Amino acid sequence: MNGADVILQTMALSGIDVVFTNPGTSEMQLVAALDHETSIRPVLGLFEGVCTGAADGYSRVTGKTGATLLHLGPGLANGLANVHNAKKAGTSVLNVVGDHATYHLHLDAPLTSDIAAVAAPMSHHVENLASPDEVASGTAQACTAAQMGSGQVSTLIVPADLAWSKSTLAPVKAQPGSQQGPSGDVDAAAQALRAGGRRAMLYLGNGAHRDDVLAAAGRIQAATGCRLAAPTFNACVPRGQGRAALEATPYFAELAVEFFREVDTLVLLGAKAPVAFFAYPDKPSILTQDGCDILPLARPEEACLPAAEALVEALGAKAHAAAPVPVQDIGKPSGDITPATFAAAFARHLPEGAVVADECISFSMDLPTMTAGCPAHRWMSCTGGAIGQGLSVAVGAAVGAPGQKVIAPTGDGSAMYTIQALWTMAREGLDVVVIIINNQAYNILQFEMIRTGANTISERAQTMLGLGNPRMDFCSMAAGMGLATHRAESAEALDDALAKAMETPGPVLIEAMV
Amino acid sequence: MNGADVILQTMALSGIDVVFTNPGTSEMQLVAALDHETSIRPVLGLFEGVCTGAADGYSRVTGKTGATLLHLGPGLANGLANVHNAKKAGTSVLNVVGDHATYHLHLDAPLTSDIAAVAAPMSHHVENLASPDEVASGTAQACTAAQMGSGQVSTLIVPADLAWSKSTLAPVKAQPGSQQGPSGDVDAAAQALRAGGRRAMLYLGNGAHRDDVLAAAGRIQAATGCRLAAPTFNACVPRGQGRAALEATPYFAELAVEFFREVDTLVLLGAKAPVAFFAYPDKPSILTQDGCDILPLARPEEACLPAAEALVEALGAKAHAAAPVPVQDIGKPSGDITPATFAAAFARHLPEGAVVADECISFSMDLPTMTAGCPAHRWMSCTGGAIGQGLSVAVGAAVGAPGQKVIAPTGDGSAMYTIQALWTMAREGLDVVVIIINNQAYNILQFEMIRTGANTISERAQTMLGLGNPRMDFCSMAAGMGLATHRAESAEALDDALAKAMETPGPVLIEAMV
Repeated sequence: MNGADVILQTMALSGIDVVFTNPGTSEMQLVAALDHETSIRPVLGLFEGVCTGAADGYSRVTGKTGATLLHLGPGLANGLANVHNAKKAGTSVLNVVGDHATYHLHLDAPLTSDIAAVAAPMSHHVENLASPDEVASGTAQACTAAQMGSGQVSTLIVPADLAWSKSTLAPVKAQPGSQQGPSGDVDAAAQALRAGGRRAMLYLGNGAHRDDVLAAAGRIQAATGCRLAAPTFNACVPRGQGRAALEATPYFAELAVEFFREVDTLVLLGAKAPVAFFAYPDKPSILTQDGCDILPLARPEEACLPAAEALVEALGAKAHAAAPVPVQDIGKPSGDITPATFAAAFARHLPEGAVVADECISFSMDLPTMTAGCPAHRWMSCTGGAIGQGLSVAVGAAVGAPGQKVIAPTGDGSAMYTIQALWTMAREGLDVVVIIINNQAYNILQFEMIRTGANTISERAQTMLGLGNPRMDFCSMAAGMGLATHRAESAEALDDALAKAMETPGPVLIEAMV
Repeated sequence: MNGADVILQTMALSGIDVVFTNPGTSEMQLVAALDHETSIRPVLGLFEGVCTGAADGYSRVTGKTGATLLHLGPGLANGLANVHNAKKAGTSVLNVVGDHATYHLHLDAPLTSDIAAVAAPMSHHVENLASPDEVASGTAQACTAAQMGSGQVSTLIVPADLAWSKSTLAPVKAQPGSQQGPSGDVDAAAQALRAGGRRAMLYLGNGAHRDDVLAAAGRIQAATGCRLAAPTFNACVPRGQGRAALEATPYFAELAVEFFREVDTLVLLGAKAPVAFFAYPDKPSILTQDGCDILPLARPEEACLPAAEALVEALGAKAHAAAPVPVQDIGKPSGDITPATFAAAFARHLPEGAVVADECISFSMDLPTMTAGCPAHRWMSCTGGAIGQGLSVAVGAAVGAPGQKVIAPTGDGSAMYTIQALWTMAREGLDVVVIIINNQAYNILQFEMIRTGANTISERAQTMLGLGNPRMDFCSMAAGMGLATHRAESAEALDDALAKAMETPGPVLIEAMV
């Protein structure tokens, strides 16, 4: 047994069963060790952002730790944007990064960089193995860090010589601390929600997006009449039939301010106080009104179930039940593909148990209301705002939730950042329906250019926001990576393509021409 | 005029005339300012690694500063691997990165990260604008840093409110320091080279890869009989007819040790002492023999021409001339596409003035010798070992060297990291010939798996190194991004495709099936 074997066994003991890999020379020992530790499934990505996004998606749908295996500082750097999203999602991710041999590092060979410094801005914890006797304990500590609270980003740096050296150490199991009760004042929150009625809001962050916490929130709402809401972008929200409905905070700051205008009391359950996504000239950064009473009941890194149950108890709400979500009867859409017809077609065919990886940005505006009454499903979005995660998160979700359809609607611009994810979908036969909204633009930036007061869009600036020259053909790209494809030029054709895709297992890409 | 205008004008005054962009909301003011500062050409990339690689390539072929415009920490992170390559190449790169408004930053909105910390590991200099009165001077300092020595990586962080606020500041021009003479002992180097003959080697780093320095090196070789050599991977080496030939250091450590075995004296001209790319069990990390006398004449960050000229003077070599490179008569290759037949076809059609962006890794072994006698050309390689740079560097080279053919041979694995570069080639009508070596594998890793002593390649490990399931169709992907394409299944077909590509302007992708 060598150091690499100890690392893999320690990871397996700590509950890691999948690793999304893009290895290089310095990780060859860890790749070889995957032969011996067969309880860990390796899934290859052609770009590191696919791997880190997939690890995030895997953690979002399973609650387990999503792991990656990456090649030195540049490999980690390529995955860092989706690590940022994972960090903001509060998911459990362990990035294992090979480094040069300890004695080779000072020579400053071409691939040398300060990996710990590359990892630090996007990691909660960085573990840099420095000697053979740290291999087992350091790996266990890195796993423990990944499993703290609702989940953290942990980076484990493995020098090549520590991986290839013989080891007599026993693997060690991660020891996450026990989850603790609510840090906030339960009675004060109960009193405020009861007194506030519709002017009170229970605001649920990522750690609260679980069936048990949502069920409690539904009881609280039924007992008090408060509003239930969530941030704009969330890790994985259970929605649809049988679940309490969360209102979504609008993306644009001016709409978000309206959303919170009537809120006098905001109780935070695993959420931070809401702030604008961006600052704009003469627009507010704080979304709640002056004088809104903000009561943190459970911090974002804290377990939310104890807080929610204590609140139910304090309110005597155990016998209450969430109001059922109304079922909508949505007719087959026709005509051009617009946000409204797209959302209609999407909602009509959303199957029970589906997991949605939503990155369709400017085209998503009608999805939340249209899908509110759909069969029970889960909704993942771009938590850190670093676009280029939808397809990658979908890969991880599909690996983590076999038997459940993963649906990844995405803009053309956002799809291109990690388009390599399509190949992993084909390779692994993942049950993903990719929907590309091909509007030939960074359409959201056309709004933002005006909203930031930069200018009306001149011809030269427009060239930086337009993607129509040349027009991208996603069916051609996807076919080149082994996927079945359909192109839809109308709402009817999109509806038909979605109907067929939901009946057919395996990956498919639908290109919706807008 | 607002802060963004001051920044753009300061950049223009400092000699920046192209910026490779992938902006977002926080950079909208800078995009708008491109309307006013029309001496700077914006070139859009669909992924930030394309932009940073292109800035590097632009600098390599022009000697000017290559600039990017990127979106917050995650946008910079996506470009960081190619920034690493630029840093190791010693090219001049300025990354301009938007940040949240100064007053918004503490709210920790989803896209918030510590951009300076993200930049630091791959930058020589980080300039974080903090107040309106720093906008002009800070931008000039960032440009100055990018232009220090042979070139550096400089990162300029621009909070959105400093970009949108009105400014009365005058733009400021960068003030790079004057270049100084050699730091090493010229007479000692002259004496050692004269005494050593074939057992002495003049080792030329990136700063020495210029026609004038090479001409001096050729005279030094003619006068002393020393060997001339360069590292394995270089920023941009002039080669072929009319130039002194540099021997290339082999990639594999055991071959590199042989390369240096007979060298008793190594004079470093803008180079570091050679070390192995990776460490391997029981193989050396230092490539020169014990007792080899290493004489640093000019440091990597130092100007090399004064050192080279002083050496010519000390040796009285002014009247000497480099030995002419022998012209090779290469017949049309036939049969399978192998490293040898590929190199033959490649060399036969390499036009005068061509710029090669080489990332074909395990398939490149016969290129150096086969192309040594070709018409004058330049050769760029992956200086930092972070693969996924060839296509991006080719974009920048083509923007920087209009009228010269850029040829980008690349492996299938390496091409996929920044495959989005193809779209920018099509959009800008760049004169690039992309050659994909489709061997359906991370072939180099199949060597490395054995060389690191990890194991013989088992079936499970093999799945992490093989790219054949599904087989990628690069013609299909490239067509989807607007490129003309050819597929070559034999050496003859490859030779024909290359002949045609060299006669046809504009981008084309040739997929060589191996």
